[in-house]
Amino acid sequence: MIIYGDSKSGNCYKLQLVCANLGLKYTWVELNILNKETQNADFLAKNPNGKIPIIELESGEVITESNAILNYLADNTELLPAEPLKRARVLQWQFFEQYSHEPYIAVARFIEKYLNLPTERLAEYKQKQEGGYKALDIMESHLADNLFLVANKYSIADISLYAYTHVAHEGGFDLTSYPHIQLWLNRIEQHPGYCAMQ
Amino acid sequence: MIIYGDSKSGNCYKLQLVCANLGLKYTWVELNILNKETQNADFLAKNPNGKIPIIELESGEVITESNAILNYLADNTELLPAEPLKRARVLQWQFFEQYSHEPYIAVARFIEKYLNLPTERLAEYKQKQEGGYKALDIMESHLADNLFLVANKYSIADISLYAYTHVAHEGGFDLTSYPHIQLWLNRIEQHPGYCAMQ
Ligand SMILES: N[C@@H](CCC(=O)N[C@@H](CS)C(=O)NCC(=O)O)C(=O)O
Ligand SMILES: N[C@@H](CCC(=O)N[C@@H](CS)C(=O)NCC(=O)O)C(=O)O
Repeated sequence: MIIYGDSKSGNCYKLQLVCANLGLKYTWVELNILNKETQNADFLAKNPNGKIPIIELESGEVITESNAILNYLADNTELLPAEPLKRARVLQWQFFEQYSHEPYIAVARFIEKYLNLPTERLAEYKQKQEGGYKALDIMESHLADNLFLVANKYSIADISLYAYTHVAHEGGFDLTSYPHIQLWLNRIEQHPGYCAMQ
Repeated sequence: MIIYGDSKSGNCYKLQLVCANLGLKYTWVELNILNKETQNADFLAKNPNGKIPIIELESGEVITESNAILNYLADNTELLPAEPLKRARVLQWQFFEQYSHEPYIAVARFIEKYLNLPTERLAEYKQKQEGGYKALDIMESHLADNLFLVANKYSIADISLYAYTHVAHEGGFDLTSYPHIQLWLNRIEQHPGYCAMQ
């Protein structure tokens, strides 16, 4: 399997973490999004949406969308429960991540970490704070009563939310008043096969 | 099962359509988002994110996120393939919908249809056009070679993308130059058990 990704991207790091946890081998192809390496004809033939991460299987088949890939790789492993309601909850957190978390926290971090807070995007950066903190509040209150996001067991739902939450400070988010999120981040980092973001 | 939704919302309509296709019975509870009926304490106890649709099972369990609910309801039916790669492709299109389609087309439609294009949101409305047409281009080119989004067979991936694509004109998008999307919309409307949005 080949993974096309950017080492600084949380969406791409999700795949590094699931592969480390599951002991899956892969070839990593590093692409630079600022240099538009996801916008050339070769890459667009693999993903017309021009986004990473994607994986390419031995068969040549390509799968796009970080959370779809996590479900594919973790199917039939301890990281993805088989029981229908638990599976629905995993997806629920992953869609929450893509709709209500990533567009705020990951985008604020992109503006700060990748672009160094350019003046013309400062207003947008500040607008991201409210939505990002709302997402963190929802996680904090759930994690006050639960060890992990689904069924008190580490799963790909945790991987999806860990990716940008653990670097939320790089987008200007202060986790000091989120003790349960902090304990949850620690629990994930203790899980066998954990690998840090580079 | 109870569905809490808003009849004008595409995310909520997804559930009406899957239930009609599968012959599932439910009780519909209509909520008005403009009157903030998703922001009161009763509703926030069910979904702290304050968003519809949600479903409440006989057991009292609540599931949030339209696409997670579709996966739950369609599991083990002809609307969700069992084969791992096909299942990954269904999710791939659903995450594409939530990240690269809905935030443009559904939000433009919300500004036009729900809010009547208020002056202070006109710039945002116009900015949504580019991303929306990009999503439509990706669908058009896929549907030029495929009858449905996954495995040439109608699935919940089609339901997820149909919801806002078939009302994209209400957000200012012109589908005239998207003939394959139009044929695909027709195919979905011919599928047994189809129900129109109200
Ligand atoms: N919904 C996608 C989002 C992927 C995404 O936004 N990737 C960014 C890097 S983190 C990217 O490729 N940006 C380049 C571009 O959009 O041109 C996923 O979860 O995989
Ligand atoms: N990712 C969610 C999005 C749901 C969503 O945005 N729902 C809108 C209506 S279409 C809503 O409840 N808005 C009210 C609010 O956010 O206060 C899903 O797919 O269910």
